[in-house]
Amino acid sequence: MAEHISKQFDMELETIRTRVLQMGGLVEQQIVSAIDALMTGNIAKFDKVITEDSLVNAMEVSIDDECLHIIARRQLTASDLRIVFTVIKAITDLERIGDEAQKIARIGKSIYQSERYQVPRFREINKLAEVALMMLRRALDAFARLDATAALELAEEDLRLDDEFDAEVRQLITFMMEDPRTISMSIDTLFISKAIERIGDHSKNIAEYVVYLVKGKDIRHTTLEDMKRETPGE
Amino acid sequence: MAEHISKQFDMELETIRTRVLQMGGLVEQQIVSAIDALMTGNIAKFDKVITEDSLVNAMEVSIDDECLHIIARRQLTASDLRIVFTVIKAITDLERIGDEAQKIARIGKSIYQSERYQVPRFREINKLAEVALMMLRRALDAFARLDATAALELAEEDLRLDDEFDAEVRQLITFMMEDPRTISMSIDTLFISKAIERIGDHSKNIAEYVVYLVKGKDIRHTTLEDMKRETPGE
Repeated sequence: MAEHISKQFDMELETIRTRVLQMGGLVEQQIVSAIDALMTGNIAKFDKVITEDSLVNAMEVSIDDECLHIIARRQLTASDLRIVFTVIKAITDLERIGDEAQKIARIGKSIYQSERYQVPRFREINKLAEVALMMLRRALDAFARLDATAALELAEEDLRLDDEFDAEVRQLITFMMEDPRTISMSIDTLFISKAIERIGDHSKNIAEYVVYLVKGKDIRHTTLEDMKRETPGE
Repeated sequence: MAEHISKQFDMELETIRTRVLQMGGLVEQQIVSAIDALMTGNIAKFDKVITEDSLVNAMEVSIDDECLHIIARRQLTASDLRIVFTVIKAITDLERIGDEAQKIARIGKSIYQSERYQVPRFREINKLAEVALMMLRRALDAFARLDATAALELAEEDLRLDDEFDAEVRQLITFMMEDPRTISMSIDTLFISKAIERIGDHSKNIAEYVVYLVKGKDIRHTTLEDMKRETPGE
């Protein structure tokens, strides 16, 4: 009977884990679509991203709900509780990555619909987005494989993304100074870059929750130097 | 004995609630200090905000920890569980408000330390910050008094803050076009405004968790129109 309860519980946890990965897959698709629409000026695709953010939101609410049901019904062990806790925290970040994808789509749509549409500088955006997407995929992969070492790599990737974002800001400033007619357009591009930079931050957060899940150790708010010092062999 | 356990549990919950409010108070103070340093160019004050963000981070980790201990030790009722869940979600937003305060301090410090420091346009920043601070105070107050109606008001305040942020962006664009030498400075101001706008978003999130706590109803991702329709008498 105890085994039966435990198997039932394992199944419930497995279902939740699967749903988190599904939610992650949807969020990833939202980013890919938003960036693709940005490159091609596909208004219908922008609209789809904007509308489908509600699916991401609904998934967060429903997974939270399942987590609460599990906690209420079962006497969880400390390690089971850590899994549920990680899910509750991580999906908040996934939902907010969805918000950023929607934001990119909104700004992109307004760029393509405005009169002032000129000289889009989306090549750099594309590069930034590739780094952010890779970070999200790694975070989800770390969650799927319960791989705590990925968090360290993601912290380094996030520094790289921040540097690339800063470089993009400096470039845009030069661009605006050379030709003030591009200011409006550049500010829009700036906000899109900012949204992508935040996707990296959220992915890093998710990876940090995975470390807590695997090691029972909270590395949130630890510096990269501290992390490296504590995991010299990894 | 049951009453004793329940009293003990009430005390634990009360302690957690108090600590959330303390964390909120610290975060509020961080914003006030960052904005004050921005108005006065007080570098020591910027540094204090930057350093003390680690206190905010530590509070999040420690409150999360207490919540997990409560869940692990006690068989919670559905409503008790809602309280703990609300705390776990709300302090993530408080911690990120702390990050935004730190971001404002970092940008402010670099503005005052740079050669290009000129014509600061901080009057509008001050106005934006007042709205965001009021939103944070209301969200904390709603949490303290378990007042679900505040969430509706906060959703409206957030629209107002978004409008004021958009107006500030348009003003900065005009400013930059009139005098391209102000571009660098204006971009810094833009990022500070963006950080303040996000403080409003996070405060709105906290108020929405309070509604869930009080009404057992999840209003996250509900439109303002839907909310009004459902609470006509409030």
